[in-house]
Amino acid sequence: MPVFCCLFLDFSHLLPALDGDAKTMNFLQEVVDIMLAYIVESFDRSTKVIDFHYPNELLQRNNWELSDEPETLDDILISCRATLKYAIKTAHPRYFNQLSTGLDMVGLAADWLTSTANTNMFTYEVAPVFVLLEYVTLKKMREIIGWQEGRGDGIFSPGGAISNMYAMLLARYKMFPEVKEKGMSSAPRLVAFTSEHSHFSIKKGAAALGIGTESVICIKADERGKMIPSDLERRIIEAKQKGYVPFFVSATAGTTVYGAFDPLMAIADICKKHDIWMHVDGAWGGSLLMSRKHRWKLNGVERANSMTWNPHKMMAVPLQCSALLVREEVRLSASCNQMQACYLFQQDKQYDLSYDTGDKALQCGRHVDIFKLWLMWRAKVLRALCLVCVLRERTLMLSAGHVSLQPQHTNVCFWYLPPGVRYLEDKVEKMKRLHKVAPVIKARMMEYGTTMVSYQPQGDKVNFFRMVISNPAATFEDIDFLIEEIERLGQDL
Amino acid sequence: MPVFCCLFLDFSHLLPALDGDAKTMNFLQEVVDIMLAYIVESFDRSTKVIDFHYPNELLQRNNWELSDEPETLDDILISCRATLKYAIKTAHPRYFNQLSTGLDMVGLAADWLTSTANTNMFTYEVAPVFVLLEYVTLKKMREIIGWQEGRGDGIFSPGGAISNMYAMLLARYKMFPEVKEKGMSSAPRLVAFTSEHSHFSIKKGAAALGIGTESVICIKADERGKMIPSDLERRIIEAKQKGYVPFFVSATAGTTVYGAFDPLMAIADICKKHDIWMHVDGAWGGSLLMSRKHRWKLNGVERANSMTWNPHKMMAVPLQCSALLVREEVRLSASCNQMQACYLFQQDKQYDLSYDTGDKALQCGRHVDIFKLWLMWRAKVLRALCLVCVLRERTLMLSAGHVSLQPQHTNVCFWYLPPGVRYLEDKVEKMKRLHKVAPVIKARMMEYGTTMVSYQPQGDKVNFFRMVISNPAATFEDIDFLIEEIERLGQDL
Repeated sequence: MPVFCCLFLDFSHLLPALDGDAKTMNFLQEVVDIMLAYIVESFDRSTKVIDFHYPNELLQRNNWELSDEPETLDDILISCRATLKYAIKTAHPRYFNQLSTGLDMVGLAADWLTSTANTNMFTYEVAPVFVLLEYVTLKKMREIIGWQEGRGDGIFSPGGAISNMYAMLLARYKMFPEVKEKGMSSAPRLVAFTSEHSHFSIKKGAAALGIGTESVICIKADERGKMIPSDLERRIIEAKQKGYVPFFVSATAGTTVYGAFDPLMAIADICKKHDIWMHVDGAWGGSLLMSRKHRWKLNGVERANSMTWNPHKMMAVPLQCSALLVREEVRLSASCNQMQACYLFQQDKQYDLSYDTGDKALQCGRHVDIFKLWLMWRAKVLRALCLVCVLRERTLMLSAGHVSLQPQHTNVCFWYLPPGVRYLEDKVEKMKRLHKVAPVIKARMMEYGTTMVSYQPQGDKVNFFRMVISNPAATFEDIDFLIEEIERLGQDL
Repeated sequence: MPVFCCLFLDFSHLLPALDGDAKTMNFLQEVVDIMLAYIVESFDRSTKVIDFHYPNELLQRNNWELSDEPETLDDILISCRATLKYAIKTAHPRYFNQLSTGLDMVGLAADWLTSTANTNMFTYEVAPVFVLLEYVTLKKMREIIGWQEGRGDGIFSPGGAISNMYAMLLARYKMFPEVKEKGMSSAPRLVAFTSEHSHFSIKKGAAALGIGTESVICIKADERGKMIPSDLERRIIEAKQKGYVPFFVSATAGTTVYGAFDPLMAIADICKKHDIWMHVDGAWGGSLLMSRKHRWKLNGVERANSMTWNPHKMMAVPLQCSALLVREEVRLSASCNQMQACYLFQQDKQYDLSYDTGDKALQCGRHVDIFKLWLMWRAKVLRALCLVCVLRERTLMLSAGHVSLQPQHTNVCFWYLPPGVRYLEDKVEKMKRLHKVAPVIKARMMEYGTTMVSYQPQGDKVNFFRMVISNPAATFEDIDFLIEEIERLGQDL
């Protein structure tokens, strides 16, 4: 029998304790009841999106410390309630703050089940079902991209930034495989290209991989945030003239702020001409491939060498779920990262070793992110969801106080001009004051807890709101509510 | 018990559908009931650890495909049952296959709650409680390591391999910060050192970061798997003489196969003398810091610059939960990876921006891994667990058929010599045949589904079993069972 040293603790009465079944069921059921109440509340518009407190205040509102005294299971339930009380309700119909919003019930059930199965993706041996589901799902995703018979490879990674980094690693490995053993000093100076509106993870990846952020050349985007192909080609030629080696172009399908789609077909032509790995960062916009009506925005993606696609964004799969899809054969991505650790990837196993996919990963242990996507897909939550979201596009009515950029996706970017700013004639002063409007309104919004939306500057544009619709619970009325709330909170500015 | 008839119901009847509350509660409760039954079964020794099928067979035993027809919620429940039917029961008392085993009920509850909160770690704004809990917990972990007042920094990352990669990144950044912008060509040839028994992620990290696997110098280990400090110093001096720059030593606290602890104090002396970043990969053995009786094995860790510590291994926190702890001030790790994306890390927010920890990460979105650790810690599952595990050390009785290496941790490595091999006199032939014993027994073990244990070769040693005890459900009887099962399955070999 297990001899637990803390004899009087409640947790020791739970499984695997003898006769722990009933106590365990009761305890877990209590937790489930807390969660079910929270879920119902999250969708209730009469509740707050957030019960916001500044960090020092929140630290004092509850005992969050790790003391030496053990807690009883009752205390544990109190901690669960407190944690949810101060959490953001990301499922709330008026939560528009991030690209990932909403809470899908099938996805949630699948994530609970994943936790219960508590295993690791490294080998078929320890995750037989999940490995097969990755295989089935990645193949389906590649078919949807348009790669012949769904051939190629792929991996689920911990987020879009890591998926993009994988793509860069693969591109480098394909051109200079010796870098794996000999490091970057064995290669000439490599340069990558991406638009000035692309996600920061391209630079972050280049920094980590020893390529350096200065070797990521930012290509100009047009007024709507789309990469300008002629500028791409100009900068590629320029780089070659300097003796650098262009190895990677990352086009974006759905930029973070504007929701812009780079012209993939033109970019594919340039990549082909100059023999450069073409990656499509579709972390945000990739899900439009599921929509018959909108997939044209990604025309040309079938010519890419790799694509990042995050079902945890527009497809509302619970966090996190990001896939890197690769057109090349399996051999490339396997050998790029593999180290063949003999304690894990034994070559004398009795089953087909191609299912031991873990050695392709940068990680050793890898969280099971597939089941929630697979189960939602089976329920056909996904296709419906994509359509719903896209239908809501361009629903933002522009009133006198709002000036909007032209939307291409479900991002709607706009300024709110409060009365005190609206009629200012000095343009410099006007922009200076407008820049301060969004942060103040956002802070007030959080204090009231009524809704949440993001803001940022972009290039020479001062702070503007970025409304994103990816929450399947949001309705037209919720969008109206956001606009009215911004006006209410900003009218004195 | 909930009576639920979901015939004809599909996901569109669930929340956020109007009047979706009751249907949602019923659906989720059905899923919970499936999970509760699975949990109880997992701890029942009369059930199989795995209902194993070879990949092609498993593909055919159920419909795993993603068709165009949507499923009803009844179908979804069937899929949930099928997935659990063919899953490995990692909580089973006779599952010894990996370093991460067992299923803690408080941890599981916390992981369910994390899924329900469904948020992202990048900013305080969207994860106020979880950001604070990371802050509180990382500080406590640094105090336990022995860093003054718990000062320093840290991050939870998607696994030990990524934590080790972070450490290498930080070490490089500290010595040559210009690599971030200019790439590896701006630095001299950097070399890292780690023992030949260390985890493969050190080489994997070096490959990815553009350092190259050939620049990871493998230091000899003694017969018990501990790094030999004199060999480390010799190789450092040799590297310097060649004009290379030693920048990183990764000592291991609990090697993957033997469970060996490198002599940290002696290694710290050498790192100090040569001014090299000292990292301790305590992914597996780090949790012994929680044990008054066993923490001496990590003496010297307080002199390290960084440490990897995976609570998802020995502390049995659900997958995944890995921390990198850093002794240096916060500024270093912030600036190493930060890109200051202005759509996310707005500098004009109204709260203390030091809580927006996301820009330290290689990832953009980051999964919430903290809550399960924090909640288990509050319940004091952890300290008890560590002690229990360690008490079980060296419990493996050696019978005539087993030859064991001397254990230092809860890894017990041993050969089983079947009668047909035991008395062979030709040593070469004996080793050749012994090498094939473990794979065959393992394959049979999986087909019977009665228990699971890992095996591998190491250096010049032929395949041996690695028994690891980290499952709090395992008892002495389960260990006996494993031994008897190995004998039963291997007696004809």
